[in-house]
Amino acid sequence: MSTYRAARIGYRRCFGSDTTVRTPIIRAHSEVVFHWLNFGFRVAGMALTPPIVLTIAGFDPSSGAGITADIKTIAAHECYGVSCITALTVQSTQGVRRVEGVDPKIIVETLGELVSDLAVDAVHIGMLGNAQVVEAVASFLGQIFPGRAKLPHVVLDPVLKSSSGADLLDAAGTRILIEKLLPLAELITPNLDEASVLTGTAVTNLDQMREAAARLHSLGAANVVVTGGHLEKAIDLLSFTTARGTEEEVFKADRQRSNSTHGTGCAFATALACHLAHGRGLPEAVLLSKVYVSAAIANAHPLGHGVGPLNHLYRMGQQRRSSTVVSEGEHVHSRN
Amino acid sequence: MSTYRAARIGYRRCFGSDTTVRTPIIRAHSEVVFHWLNFGFRVAGMALTPPIVLTIAGFDPSSGAGITADIKTIAAHECYGVSCITALTVQSTQGVRRVEGVDPKIIVETLGELVSDLAVDAVHIGMLGNAQVVEAVASFLGQIFPGRAKLPHVVLDPVLKSSSGADLLDAAGTRILIEKLLPLAELITPNLDEASVLTGTAVTNLDQMREAAARLHSLGAANVVVTGGHLEKAIDLLSFTTARGTEEEVFKADRQRSNSTHGTGCAFATALACHLAHGRGLPEAVLLSKVYVSAAIANAHPLGHGVGPLNHLYRMGQQRRSSTVVSEGEHVHSRN
Repeated sequence: MSTYRAARIGYRRCFGSDTTVRTPIIRAHSEVVFHWLNFGFRVAGMALTPPIVLTIAGFDPSSGAGITADIKTIAAHECYGVSCITALTVQSTQGVRRVEGVDPKIIVETLGELVSDLAVDAVHIGMLGNAQVVEAVASFLGQIFPGRAKLPHVVLDPVLKSSSGADLLDAAGTRILIEKLLPLAELITPNLDEASVLTGTAVTNLDQMREAAARLHSLGAANVVVTGGHLEKAIDLLSFTTARGTEEEVFKADRQRSNSTHGTGCAFATALACHLAHGRGLPEAVLLSKVYVSAAIANAHPLGHGVGPLNHLYRMGQQRRSSTVVSEGEHVHSRN
Repeated sequence: MSTYRAARIGYRRCFGSDTTVRTPIIRAHSEVVFHWLNFGFRVAGMALTPPIVLTIAGFDPSSGAGITADIKTIAAHECYGVSCITALTVQSTQGVRRVEGVDPKIIVETLGELVSDLAVDAVHIGMLGNAQVVEAVASFLGQIFPGRAKLPHVVLDPVLKSSSGADLLDAAGTRILIEKLLPLAELITPNLDEASVLTGTAVTNLDQMREAAARLHSLGAANVVVTGGHLEKAIDLLSFTTARGTEEEVFKADRQRSNSTHGTGCAFATALACHLAHGRGLPEAVLLSKVYVSAAIANAHPLGHGVGPLNHLYRMGQQRRSSTVVSEGEHVHSRN
C-alpha cells in the first residue's frame, strides 16, 4: 500500500469521509494540514494525486470547445478534470446550431456531488447560457466556499457569444455575472468583445484594454486578462493586484494564421486554472497558457469543414514526433 | 499549404462539402478513393488527420466513465474523439445519484451535425438510458449508413446497470437494443451480467460464456467479446466470424485488485473502437485494449472516496516517469 493511500485511509478513519459536514475545529485543522502535506508532496514531485480542476461550461459534441475540450486541456496540464455541463449545444466545426440549457437544479446537484467527493483545487467557468444558471453557480460557489480566503482558484471566462456569432449568454445573465460571479473570481479572462460588453466601452487597442481592465477592477474583479488575439499583433494584457497595488504585464506575439482556432478562449482560461492549481503565479500562468494555446494551434490537424479544433493533447504526439518550436513572443513588465 | 489540405480543398471544390447528399456515382467513387488515400497516408505514418471516433454515451461529471472518459481513451489511442450525450447523470466515485435522459430529438440532431461535418471511422455506443434513445440511435445509424458495408466500425457496449447498481437501461430499451441495434454492430462487448440479461441464461464460467456468445450470434451479433473481469481469474472470450466460420480466442490474466476501476467497461469498448478505426483485426484489438485498461488501472491515482477512475492518459505521465510493466497474461487461440 502506498504511503499516500495509508495516510488517506488513516485520515478517513479519524475524521470521516464527508467533506461537507466538518464542524469541529480539530477536524477542519487536520484537513488543512493534510491538504498542505499533499501539496508539499506534489511540489516535491512525489505525488500521489494530481490537482483537481473543475470546469463548469457548455457541451460541444465536436470537442473543439466546452467540457470535453477542457478535460483534454486539464489532462495536458497533469491535473485531473471533473465537469459540470451548463448547456447542451448542437454544433460542429461549422458553427453552433442550437443551445439547450440544463436545469439549474441538476447543475447545483452535480456541483454538490463533486465537491463532497473530491477536493477541488481550481474552477474554470465558461459558457453559462442564461441568468438562472449564472445565479445558481454564483450562489453555489458562495455557499460551498463561504468567504474569499477559502475559495479554490476560480477563473471566469465570461463567454457571451460563440466565435460563429451565436448568443451564449442573455443580457440578464450578463448583469448577474458582473454583479455576483465577477467578485468571486480570482481571474477574469474577457476577449476584446467581451471586455467591451462588460464595461460598456469600445475596446480595440492596448490603451482601451487598460481602461477596460481598470473598470473591471472597479466592478470587483481581483485580476484581469484582456485577450487581444484578434488584433493585428496579438496582445494580451494582464492587470493584477499585488501588495504594492495594481501591476500589469503585456504579452505580445505574432498573430497565428490558422483555421484551427475553435475554442482557443476555453483552452486559454482552462490552462490558466490548471497553472493556478499547480501553485504558479499569475504572470507565469498567463505566459505558459499562451504558449500552450499557440502550440495546440500549431500542432492541430485539419478536421471538419469549418473552423477546426486545437490539438489539446499535442504533447502526447511529441513522444514520437519532433516538436514544433513555438515563439514566446515579446514580454513587457511594468508597474503602475 | 500542406499536401493534405490542398487535396482536401481541391476535393471540396470538385465535389462539394455536404457529405450527406452525394448521389452521383462519380462523387461516391471519389470519396472512396480519397478515403483510402488518406488511410494509406495514415498507415505510412504521414498522416495528416487521425481517425475520428464518435462516442454515444452518458455524461459522468467525475470523468470516471461516460463521454469525457471516452474522449480521453480516444485521445490515448491517437484518434480524434467527438461525442453525443444520451443522458446526464449526477454521480461521483461514490455512485450514481440521478439519471436525466436527453431529448432524442437533440441526440438525432447532434449525430446529424457531426456526420455531416466529419468522416467518422468508428462509433462506440455506451449507456443509452431508455427505449426512445435506443430507437433513435438505431434508426439514425440505419438511415445515415444504409447497408452493412457502408457502416463505420460500430462497437456496442450494452450498458444495463452502473457498477454501483443503478439501472441505466429499462426492459423495453433492452428489447429494442437486441432487436435493432445489435445487428448493426460490428462488435458487442457484454460483461457477465449483461450477457446473462441479453441471453436470459446464467453466465458465470467460460463454458456459459461460450453458450452466451453463440446465442448472441444467433440474435444477429457479428462478433462478441464477453468480458469476465469479475471472475477469480479474469477471462475474456472473443467469438468472431471469419470466412472459415466462427472462431474464438480466450484471453486470461490475473485479476487486478484495485479500487480504481470506475468505468473499465467504457474504456475497454472505446479502446476497441479506436483499434478498429486504426484498421486492426479483432483479436489484436481485444488484446491491445485489455493491456490498455490494465495499464490505466495500474497507473491510476487514488481519487475520491468511492471507486476511483482509471488513468486514461497514463502514457502522458510516462514521458517523464518510468513505466509500469503490465502483464499481457495468457493468450489461447482455438478454432471451432
